[in-house]
Amino acid sequence: MTAPLRIALAGLGTVGGGVVQILAQQAELVAARAGRPVEIVAVSARDKARKRSHDISTYRWVDDPLLLASLPDADVVVELIGGSEGVARRLVDAALQNGKHVVTANKALLAHHGLALAKLAESRKVALAYEAAVAGGIPVIKALREGLAANRISRVSGILNGTCNYILSTMWEEKHRFADVLAQAQAKGFAEADPSFDIDGVDASHKICLLAALAFGCAPDFASVRTEGIRRITLEDMRFAQELGYRIKLLGVAQDGQASVYPCLVPLDSPLARVQGAYNAVVIEGDAVGRILLEGAGAGALPTASAVVADLVDIARGHVAPVFGTPATQLRTSGVRHEARGTSENAKASGPMPQASSFYLRLAVADRPGVLASVTDCLRAQLISVQSLIQHPHAPEESAQIVLTTHVTTEAAMARALSAIHALGMVVQEPVLLRIADH
Amino acid sequence: MTAPLRIALAGLGTVGGGVVQILAQQAELVAARAGRPVEIVAVSARDKARKRSHDISTYRWVDDPLLLASLPDADVVVELIGGSEGVARRLVDAALQNGKHVVTANKALLAHHGLALAKLAESRKVALAYEAAVAGGIPVIKALREGLAANRISRVSGILNGTCNYILSTMWEEKHRFADVLAQAQAKGFAEADPSFDIDGVDASHKICLLAALAFGCAPDFASVRTEGIRRITLEDMRFAQELGYRIKLLGVAQDGQASVYPCLVPLDSPLARVQGAYNAVVIEGDAVGRILLEGAGAGALPTASAVVADLVDIARGHVAPVFGTPATQLRTSGVRHEARGTSENAKASGPMPQASSFYLRLAVADRPGVLASVTDCLRAQLISVQSLIQHPHAPEESAQIVLTTHVTTEAAMARALSAIHALGMVVQEPVLLRIADH
Repeated sequence: MTAPLRIALAGLGTVGGGVVQILAQQAELVAARAGRPVEIVAVSARDKARKRSHDISTYRWVDDPLLLASLPDADVVVELIGGSEGVARRLVDAALQNGKHVVTANKALLAHHGLALAKLAESRKVALAYEAAVAGGIPVIKALREGLAANRISRVSGILNGTCNYILSTMWEEKHRFADVLAQAQAKGFAEADPSFDIDGVDASHKICLLAALAFGCAPDFASVRTEGIRRITLEDMRFAQELGYRIKLLGVAQDGQASVYPCLVPLDSPLARVQGAYNAVVIEGDAVGRILLEGAGAGALPTASAVVADLVDIARGHVAPVFGTPATQLRTSGVRHEARGTSENAKASGPMPQASSFYLRLAVADRPGVLASVTDCLRAQLISVQSLIQHPHAPEESAQIVLTTHVTTEAAMARALSAIHALGMVVQEPVLLRIADH
Repeated sequence: MTAPLRIALAGLGTVGGGVVQILAQQAELVAARAGRPVEIVAVSARDKARKRSHDISTYRWVDDPLLLASLPDADVVVELIGGSEGVARRLVDAALQNGKHVVTANKALLAHHGLALAKLAESRKVALAYEAAVAGGIPVIKALREGLAANRISRVSGILNGTCNYILSTMWEEKHRFADVLAQAQAKGFAEADPSFDIDGVDASHKICLLAALAFGCAPDFASVRTEGIRRITLEDMRFAQELGYRIKLLGVAQDGQASVYPCLVPLDSPLARVQGAYNAVVIEGDAVGRILLEGAGAGALPTASAVVADLVDIARGHVAPVFGTPATQLRTSGVRHEARGTSENAKASGPMPQASSFYLRLAVADRPGVLASVTDCLRAQLISVQSLIQHPHAPEESAQIVLTTHVTTEAAMARALSAIHALGMVVQEPVLLRIADH
């Protein structure tokens, strides 16, 4: 098998440039490992004239990326355009229809249309590979789809968005407010001008959606992912968390068939607490293997391109696995859960999450006699027991802060307790309620 | 592809029992992921009558394991007998000769005969898979062979022997001596009656040998692995290491084409320092991906069986990768290095390692005026600069302890300095010299 694997590459941004660089500079190494050369035959991007760090003049330029799907001399289309709809979706769909393998870093596309695309790829017996879509160069897709295939997976949790982790890490290390660190990250180019995609948890939500599909053999279902970002995280809560032995991180969590993204207190001595800056880490729990940790750079041109090229090497070797580990026709769909929770296919999930957890609660209250007793009464009425409680002395002009952690309870019970606490008329600021990831 | 993948299993010890358990209890899950059933058709082990936790009565029993290599109704031989020679070697060789896939957990066999067996497997176009041979259920073989295939790997280092890590962790946590913890581990069954294989670094040496082959595209060459175990590690050195900001761990390190195993000081804030008990962890450094950490259970029935079954799922899916990532005929052989260093093919490597490092040195010296000046003179003469130095007050009847760390230098320079220090006639006890893994 010495015929080259011929690549048509759509998108020459950060990751696309990295792919061009690796395939040019490591051609010999990649060919040795792949068993045959891996060659770019055509490229397409928005602006042909744009100055690039890598020479693309030796590749055929195609103005319309959709034409890459039907090039007779391309075996694989690498889609690095992005977005769940539009050109990216049409290109991937057409390439698969035409029996071409597809490699993509497009988490949004797969989170929204993964089931249909997987069925299409598998019916055509071609690969739809997306290692680069989650956690950059860390081979977490391969670990779940292949390395841990003998395991019933009970939980996947991880730090999946480098921008959020950078902001949270920097807030804590430099004792700066969220808004200031975000502005600084935007100035440095670590965060987008419109940061919502990252900081509201959407990006992490796409990623945990794919990990949940692989872990549980269910179709990716972005609409069912409960998603919350980091805008409301304050330095004050980080200080209290530290005092209680925790660090606040944005986690993607897949458990009991449910995927969620939320800011969360993780124990200081847990591996996820120590993940700094733009790094990503994923903890996978399987019935045979126990707990596995994978950690590394979660973004960046070369780490992400490393994952794209790994997928190309798999394809060159003739390895085509089911897109989500289980054949697409056998993936469970989660329509039942939708109906039960009363959300439509297109709305994001809302309402309390079913999974039990312990919680962190911070209340700013008027400093009146009996406040603490009244608050703890409201918790007791919902059978919520308090694990630890902090109340520091405060200046007369400030409100009193009550910070407590609970033993394991449900979000629904916490919501009932909170509305009883509200009814006391003593709360002077919106309470802060965060989950605690105690294992 | 719904015809079952038919397995002949040799060896029903800890790992073999785990494989039987997973394939029985997770048959449906494994079949869904593999695209077809994975079925044991025959088993062989030393003692048919032995009481086992899993029912093997439904499988054909074969007294002579070698016969498994020629069963017409078996597609794969799973070799879990162990040992680099004898039955295991003959079985694997015969199975590959007969065009059967082989899955094994046998690191010794592959470290000694990997090249010949890989050539044989690749010539027959069958798999020789060994995920279970290194780091239990952690998919590190797959990560190097596939997930990081786009990378030129500069370094692989890891905690690869759970028994050693358990002993070192327990010594430190419970402040017990090496011999006591070893005896306790033996009593609990964590360490063998003859513990040499683990504590002298042989097991870790087999494993790093395989990781080096995958990382650098060289044939496994057990004879060239510099190996040192943990017998000489004392609680006293652990205390000094802690004072200097380090933990002592037994590492396997592959770097600059050379594989080694040695006890080593790792910074307290590094991920390897935090690996506790029988856990394993591997850090892989690639030019594109940066640094990746994989951590998990490194041994045990189910974690190791998880890796065996993952290999079976790959084979069921039709995935056969080159045994060491690069086709066996293209693997570099390290004969040159042997000649240069004057070791024969069958002797273990010895003499100073070429890689530069910083070092930890503890000297017990007679408490005479000028000792410290004389010692530092000897280091300066070899252009070795001291990074930090500890000398605590000591009781009059005890010798003085000088503990120092150096900046980066070579083992050869340290050896010359040490012989000059010996010549001073002030050293009253064998000096302790350990490498520091500063990155």
